[in-house]
Amino acid sequence: MILLEGRKTAKDIKQEIAEEVSSFISGGGKKPHLAAILVGADGASETYVNAKVKACDNVGFDSTLIRLENKVSELELLLEIEKINNNDNIDGLIVQLPLPSHIDEMKVTQAIHPSKDVDGFHPENIGRMALNLPTYLPATPAGILELLLRYDVKTSGQHCVVVGRSHIVGSPISILLSKNNYPGNCTVTLTHSRTKNLDKITRSADILIVALGIPEFIKPEMVKDGVVIIDVGITRVESNKTKNGWKLLGDVAFEQLKNKCSFITPVPGGVGPMTIAMLLKNTLKSAKREVY
Amino acid sequence: MILLEGRKTAKDIKQEIAEEVSSFISGGGKKPHLAAILVGADGASETYVNAKVKACDNVGFDSTLIRLENKVSELELLLEIEKINNNDNIDGLIVQLPLPSHIDEMKVTQAIHPSKDVDGFHPENIGRMALNLPTYLPATPAGILELLLRYDVKTSGQHCVVVGRSHIVGSPISILLSKNNYPGNCTVTLTHSRTKNLDKITRSADILIVALGIPEFIKPEMVKDGVVIIDVGITRVESNKTKNGWKLLGDVAFEQLKNKCSFITPVPGGVGPMTIAMLLKNTLKSAKREVY
Repeated sequence: MILLEGRKTAKDIKQEIAEEVSSFISGGGKKPHLAAILVGADGASETYVNAKVKACDNVGFDSTLIRLENKVSELELLLEIEKINNNDNIDGLIVQLPLPSHIDEMKVTQAIHPSKDVDGFHPENIGRMALNLPTYLPATPAGILELLLRYDVKTSGQHCVVVGRSHIVGSPISILLSKNNYPGNCTVTLTHSRTKNLDKITRSADILIVALGIPEFIKPEMVKDGVVIIDVGITRVESNKTKNGWKLLGDVAFEQLKNKCSFITPVPGGVGPMTIAMLLKNTLKSAKREVY
Repeated sequence: MILLEGRKTAKDIKQEIAEEVSSFISGGGKKPHLAAILVGADGASETYVNAKVKACDNVGFDSTLIRLENKVSELELLLEIEKINNNDNIDGLIVQLPLPSHIDEMKVTQAIHPSKDVDGFHPENIGRMALNLPTYLPATPAGILELLLRYDVKTSGQHCVVVGRSHIVGSPISILLSKNNYPGNCTVTLTHSRTKNLDKITRSADILIVALGIPEFIKPEMVKDGVVIIDVGITRVESNKTKNGWKLLGDVAFEQLKNKCSFITPVPGGVGPMTIAMLLKNTLKSAKREVY
């Protein structure tokens, strides 16, 4: 069994980005600049945004964090986005989700100009992904592809089963892995809450990607020997074995089935750390005008 | 076995559209207007475009057919598209494919403003489809959904196997049928040229959608009893049994396996006739500003 070590891989990628930025700038290029909008003061969102800003600093990007009050109106937020769309000095813009309930997230996502949508959530970028055109891939699916690539996991002709059809993970990764690319060329089955005989389907998977958010949902009897497992779930559960009283669990019963796998991502330290690295990659692509 | 009669269904839909147009106009609405660009004089393209123009007439739409010479430059074509994008009197624009080889089809597709892209090929519209947002669905997948709907075919929880991953049929229908909609909520497997053990996979299908362009590729032993078959293929093959020396065949060996099916589309007269009806539907949606 080989661990797909996202933490280590993300570190390598950030190092590569730092080197690329440095040579881009010394060649006369502009320092990449990411803007992030944080609405309100939710603890988890704060942590995520701060990690993104810090990652920018570490690889030599500029960053701007715009904090808006929880009670900001949708219109004010849209005007802020419009300002950044028109600011030539900023290459990428992300709005940290979730947003307060009085704001329409889909409207906000669509307001970001596709050329600055480094989260890859805009319909134009999702459509380009589906059509195999140059685009910003959404971070989590991109992170999964990168892990498969860097660990040289065989994908062509393999049966990939995806569990969960969310817009940001399950659905896009199912599209990406079916394309005539590497990683890709999988026969892909997308499963979800209405799927019958899920056990039978997961047992037929050569590659199993799970993005449900249900701790330890996948049990050993649901997979075959030699399977590749990508576990996207990460849930905080109570624990009396840790000092802080909780631990993080994936969607896969890791300890029970790790020895059946040829490759498996740990949780934490698997897919999670890859996402920020992919966001930085998209921002660099934008600064270099590689997509638009 | 029940035949999914696309020809009859398309006729019904056109009748409904004609009635809707008529009440839209009598309520003060503008007559829907479709513009079609035909480059060169390929026989099949000419036939398709003429059929679309005629269908517009029949349901009470205006139509404009713009013929450009085969040697028209890409720039001239793009300028023509830009003119129509800016013409408020025109609701929908299609450019008949294929285009001469000196013109980049993807560039042309992307030049059509998403709000007039009634073929549903623009990345923005494909992305909206993937995100389950209001959009113009591409005609063939939309026609398949409409057939399933009108014949009340059960889809939720069914295993749908799609054979062929083209941008205009296989890939979008696999996305659409996996969504939490009706028709939809299928467990979808997308297969293609790199798929292993295709027979085994097609035999597990409750719904089998085939869009390959290989006559009679699907044989009786590749499907289970009671399967629903949607055959998108249509190929002209020589025949000494017809007066004109040829006949049209689908991707499915219809005569050999029709009695194993619960539902099956004939070829011709199945999916094919549905596509123009769906194009008209998109044009009407545009005239009524239901998407943009």
